[in-house]
Amino acid sequence: MSIAMRTNAALCLRKAGFVKAGGTSKKHVIGSLGRRGEVRGLCVKSCDGGVGNKMRVDRINGRKANGVVVNGSEPPLCWRKGGEDEGGVMSVNDFKVGQFVEERFVYRQVFVIRSYEIGPDKTATMETLMNLLQETALNHVMSSGLASDGFGATHEMSLRKLIWVVTRINIQVDKYSRWGDVIEIDTWVAASGKNGMRRDWIIREYNAKRIIARATSKWVMMNRETRRLSKIPEQVREEVRPFYLDRMIISEISSNHTIDKLTDDTAEHIRSGLAPRWSDMDVNQHVNNVKYIGWILESVPLNVLEDYHLASITLEYRRECRQSQLLESLTSMVSKESDQKHTSSCKTDLGSTHLIRLQEDKAEIVRARAEWRCKANA
Amino acid sequence: MSIAMRTNAALCLRKAGFVKAGGTSKKHVIGSLGRRGEVRGLCVKSCDGGVGNKMRVDRINGRKANGVVVNGSEPPLCWRKGGEDEGGVMSVNDFKVGQFVEERFVYRQVFVIRSYEIGPDKTATMETLMNLLQETALNHVMSSGLASDGFGATHEMSLRKLIWVVTRINIQVDKYSRWGDVIEIDTWVAASGKNGMRRDWIIREYNAKRIIARATSKWVMMNRETRRLSKIPEQVREEVRPFYLDRMIISEISSNHTIDKLTDDTAEHIRSGLAPRWSDMDVNQHVNNVKYIGWILESVPLNVLEDYHLASITLEYRRECRQSQLLESLTSMVSKESDQKHTSSCKTDLGSTHLIRLQEDKAEIVRARAEWRCKANA
Repeated sequence: MSIAMRTNAALCLRKAGFVKAGGTSKKHVIGSLGRRGEVRGLCVKSCDGGVGNKMRVDRINGRKANGVVVNGSEPPLCWRKGGEDEGGVMSVNDFKVGQFVEERFVYRQVFVIRSYEIGPDKTATMETLMNLLQETALNHVMSSGLASDGFGATHEMSLRKLIWVVTRINIQVDKYSRWGDVIEIDTWVAASGKNGMRRDWIIREYNAKRIIARATSKWVMMNRETRRLSKIPEQVREEVRPFYLDRMIISEISSNHTIDKLTDDTAEHIRSGLAPRWSDMDVNQHVNNVKYIGWILESVPLNVLEDYHLASITLEYRRECRQSQLLESLTSMVSKESDQKHTSSCKTDLGSTHLIRLQEDKAEIVRARAEWRCKANA
Repeated sequence: MSIAMRTNAALCLRKAGFVKAGGTSKKHVIGSLGRRGEVRGLCVKSCDGGVGNKMRVDRINGRKANGVVVNGSEPPLCWRKGGEDEGGVMSVNDFKVGQFVEERFVYRQVFVIRSYEIGPDKTATMETLMNLLQETALNHVMSSGLASDGFGATHEMSLRKLIWVVTRINIQVDKYSRWGDVIEIDTWVAASGKNGMRRDWIIREYNAKRIIARATSKWVMMNRETRRLSKIPEQVREEVRPFYLDRMIISEISSNHTIDKLTDDTAEHIRSGLAPRWSDMDVNQHVNNVKYIGWILESVPLNVLEDYHLASITLEYRRECRQSQLLESLTSMVSKESDQKHTSSCKTDLGSTHLIRLQEDKAEIVRARAEWRCKANA
């Protein structure tokens, strides 16, 4: 299992042992995505006597679930769908925590987009989507019963002072939700090479079940004291392997594409003096990984932010950042059709390359690559 | 009704007409707060046949409610409490939108604190609380059927290009929630003087029903084009008066106390060069009112942020801020017991005064006053 996007760190991924491989517990193909009704389990307390394909998640397949987060003093809550053909029971944990589906390989949580999670164009921001992916991932780990702390380390990891750190995430958005929209996020994990883990997500419209976004991420293990990368110990591998589901929502080819390093010469837009705020820090006093999105956007031209949706972004985390450090944001925009430098018209889709670096010594923190879709064409 | 904390503006409150008065539709005293079970209405579709003191809110007292936000294509959803003594029906709108209670004078919404809404000390931040107050207020307006846009203006206001702007908000927090905690927010509005409106909120722990925070705010009307203050037109007054509930959760004396203006001489800590980010903007391209909290905290000493909880904060909004403007944050800390300047020990509670001003011409944007409670004593 995985901590979500809480901590990143000085990473040298060319180190031996961090390359591709297979090794998973269950094989799925992309074509099988989105199937529903594969859920088995016990409906502890059903509303209206209706027993459908949903369940309460206190116990699933005889195993305690969600035990970490669910408050024992709370009365059990459940709600049902009123539609004739959609009879079934859902737990209020869909909102509070979430539920396991598909034989416990997939974790699902429902969210309502709030007014303060939308941007100037009235749709959910990329930062909001990444926050919700993080929330779902953390609740997945908590609900699995594996977590020894609140932030994703398993028991065997804690014994060895190991944490998960994200090295790369790619998010592709077909449609941005609006205030009050209800979305459903599925997440699962798989092996990634010998010493990595992959975590994927799907975001669907809750009513129509249409997929509106998908994401994939790569994680490695690090000693939280020495900050050095670690191989995955066999005991940890045994803990997490039963949860692995080898299903790819984004092909490795598109998510692994190298991101060019921007320099003072190649960047078109540079914004200096960016200062992490107290509220950007996570519980480890590091900059929360989601916050880099905001800094990347700081060097994107205003007309692009106004006229385009972020259709896809890949972030490659290379180094930790602490509160006192000043940052610089670099951006280079390219028109995708002609590979020409971007002008201000909103006719073709755009590509962009980004770098967040320390202002003082220019050390790289995050590289990113994005694709932009003209809002008028959406 | 009121737009929540979306827009503030150049305000001159000494203008004639913006002083105290009475004039409300229903009187309540503070002692009657927190009573439950006063709800009447129609349970459109109950789970399990149970009809208790909760309801679905599609129609209340024969009047359509929540019609603006609830998606017609969505199957009706409801959930019930399983506890013997708590039988009743709650709508999933408690999470999605909320519900009217207490004869439609109070609007209530339930929230789960998410992982990305907590700070380094693992409790919900003040910014999170203010966001949730805003969300509840906006949904109150939307659900009332009064709103002509998504951000709080009534039909008669829109005809006249009028918007609500907040001039002052005071929030008092007894206990900060943690990730996964479920809270319930009540909100209502009342007249405030001849040309103002008050909006109050209570935050309770969802299970224990214990009040953990309360807030009050003042609003005036402004022409969105001329940016000048306006009296409340009689037609608008008639629209909103049926919703007024004269119940104070915070006494006017404590919430109206004047806030001293900080200067370069009186401020102990000054942080310059604060730049609003693209993601700080609201749909009107103004800085979202909640964001000022973050900038205020930027000039508060780190040991105060680490050792103290923000027990209370009052923000007085004096001027609009747009994206291109650089800001300065000024703070002065005072130990409350001795009125001595604060040293680094966490023995007594602290008071503080703050100012956010434009860096260029030193024009005041927000004055604030806060109280800090030592975490070790909490």
